[in-house]
Amino acid sequence: MERIAKTPQPPYYAVIFTSQRTNGDHGYAKMANEMIKLASQQEGFLGIESARDSEVGITVSYWDSLESINKWKNHSAHKIAQERGKAEWYQSFSLRICKVERDDLFEK
Amino acid sequence: MERIAKTPQPPYYAVIFTSQRTNGDHGYAKMANEMIKLASQQEGFLGIESARDSEVGITVSYWDSLESINKWKNHSAHKIAQERGKAEWYQSFSLRICKVERDDLFEK
Repeated sequence: MERIAKTPQPPYYAVIFTSQRTNGDHGYAKMANEMIKLASQQEGFLGIESARDSEVGITVSYWDSLESINKWKNHSAHKIAQERGKAEWYQSFSLRICKVERDDLFEK
Repeated sequence: MERIAKTPQPPYYAVIFTSQRTNGDHGYAKMANEMIKLASQQEGFLGIESARDSEVGITVSYWDSLESINKWKNHSAHKIAQERGKAEWYQSFSLRICKVERDDLFEK
């Protein structure tokens, strides 16, 4: 998967998920990979970018519409992951739904 | 600095900067810290979140308006950093300007 998402012309939507983990894995890495794979199969999915260091992780997923974001939010397997996330994996997180108005790509 | 930004009620704006570095530091770490410090002193700055792993970095800065984003883009010291970024530090990057429409914070 591309680490910098190749998205279409704006407008489109972004979900910015910033998180601080609890200690230990508790099945997180496996579920995180499954959720990225599953998200990428959903209608309206445009791409995903993710980086994690020792303190914080940021995952940005891109979507064609708020409707597609809402469907993914309510996907049954994703809802199970969300519950485990709150119970086990995350100390804190923020979730922001955004409309991308302009973008620019630089490549050497 | 808080690793998860405490932002006001939406709407506000986000700049999502996703990058892949060139090899070596070349003064990057020092300049990156200076730019975060300088950005946080600008009018309309609301917060910043950043994560970098071995392949990719994502920095999201939050602003009260497109005007504040544009002023920061054109800040003289920031423009010098942008030029060095293209010449020395980044293999590729994407920059997205977004309007944050909804957000949610979870804390244990």
